[in-house]
Amino acid sequence: MNASTPKRLRVDLLPQPGLAYPDVVLVVDVIRATTTAAAFLEAGASAIYVSAGLEQARAFKDHDVVIAGEEGGLTPAGFDYGNSPREALEAPVTGKTVVMATTNGTRAAHLAAATAKHVLLASLYNAHAAARLANDLATEEVAILCAGAGGRVGLDDTYTAGVLAEFIQLMGSYDLQDGTLIALATRRTYPDPLEPLSLSLAAKSLQRVGLEADVPFCARIAASPAVPVLEGRVGEALIFRRYQPQRAGAASSEG
Amino acid sequence: MNASTPKRLRVDLLPQPGLAYPDVVLVVDVIRATTTAAAFLEAGASAIYVSAGLEQARAFKDHDVVIAGEEGGLTPAGFDYGNSPREALEAPVTGKTVVMATTNGTRAAHLAAATAKHVLLASLYNAHAAARLANDLATEEVAILCAGAGGRVGLDDTYTAGVLAEFIQLMGSYDLQDGTLIALATRRTYPDPLEPLSLSLAAKSLQRVGLEADVPFCARIAASPAVPVLEGRVGEALIFRRYQPQRAGAASSEG
Ligand SMILES: [Ca+2]
Ligand SMILES: [Ca+2]
Ligand SMILES: [Ca+2]
Repeated sequence: MNASTPKRLRVDLLPQPGLAYPDVVLVVDVIRATTTAAAFLEAGASAIYVSAGLEQARAFKDHDVVIAGEEGGLTPAGFDYGNSPREALEAPVTGKTVVMATTNGTRAAHLAAATAKHVLLASLYNAHAAARLANDLATEEVAILCAGAGGRVGLDDTYTAGVLAEFIQLMGSYDLQDGTLIALATRRTYPDPLEPLSLSLAAKSLQRVGLEADVPFCARIAASPAVPVLEGRVGEALIFRRYQPQRAGAASSEG
Repeated sequence: MNASTPKRLRVDLLPQPGLAYPDVVLVVDVIRATTTAAAFLEAGASAIYVSAGLEQARAFKDHDVVIAGEEGGLTPAGFDYGNSPREALEAPVTGKTVVMATTNGTRAAHLAAATAKHVLLASLYNAHAAARLANDLATEEVAILCAGAGGRVGLDDTYTAGVLAEFIQLMGSYDLQDGTLIALATRRTYPDPLEPLSLSLAAKSLQRVGLEADVPFCARIAASPAVPVLEGRVGEALIFRRYQPQRAGAASSEG
């Protein structure tokens, strides 16, 4: 690719099984999986495994492995934690692996991992760091893949994509695509992130189970520099670790 | 359904195979299929058949049937017309059936027709009339289904959905969903409809084949009262006719 060719900044508002990702993907499930994943890294977790399902997550449980996830918004039976970023940030997980099993975020992460060179988990919480890293890694395209919910677009994820796109545009020259312009329009319509997040179906679902206090946490912009980056796989799970520039080129310690 | 319950105003930014539509659907492929369909009715066509494909369309050709469609933006071999609304409005089709075969609009129309009670073809060109009719027909939900292009959302279709949603909200009390708020945000970001339509991938594709003069036609808001409404099927084709309130309850003249 010619160095003078602008990179593409692409936003896909829903995972579509046929789509391929040639370069960098920022996976967004802001309420709550990708926010919670960054919060577990902030709390000191050494790795996040994104599991393909609840049963697969249970099979990982071990003395140095905790499992976190949700089923209808709540902590599944036998799990150590739910999918709450507030709970994740306070969890005693230093040096531990956290296996996460959620619904929409898991599907989007696996779709991205099937083809992309680099997969990052992004949210408002780590928006600056994730945008910067995506811009640094990309040679051709930054794609922001929104998880949505049950095959429907999410206002929360689309807004977050707009925030990320705005940051990325500040750092480089990008061709914008239709989904990107829609996400940017959504971002510009709501100056306060708490408004679109609170209006989203995802927030309304949390209200029904009494977890609405997670929404203001998910609405904080750029509070954390922790960006989960895909490093490999174990079985059907995706292994994410905190991006650390000095580790580039070093052998992975994963057995 | 309780008469005091607000209806839902839903926007789906992409056709998703699993989604069901319980009530009214406005199918939007503004550049160009749903604009062109209304233009053919304006020109006097008695019916629009939305065909499942090019070959199926060719099989309909007859002395009182013309076929229109596109392949890579251009008129397919053996077709009478392309998919240009400018050409459609001038076409000598009074009393004739027009069989249309396009890609994205066809797929969305067939998805809607699989479950919905009422399917209307909507565009900016017939936006007022289509919004009014959708509001009149709906008892439970108005869904606006955007065709998109190749599994990606379209800025043009999303903007048009926002214009339709704005009109529908003026006429009744509706619960808005995430997709609706995204479409409304997109609509409010661009006061001039020509701007989002011109920025869309669909418009750029027309430029490549020299048909960019269709874009300003597609950007005219509420220039026509002609709304194609699904009345039945013939084989794999969907039969749309101009909505005429006085025909309600009358026997169809279709053989
Ligand atoms: Ca979510
Ligand atoms: Ca162990
Ligand atoms: Ca189109």
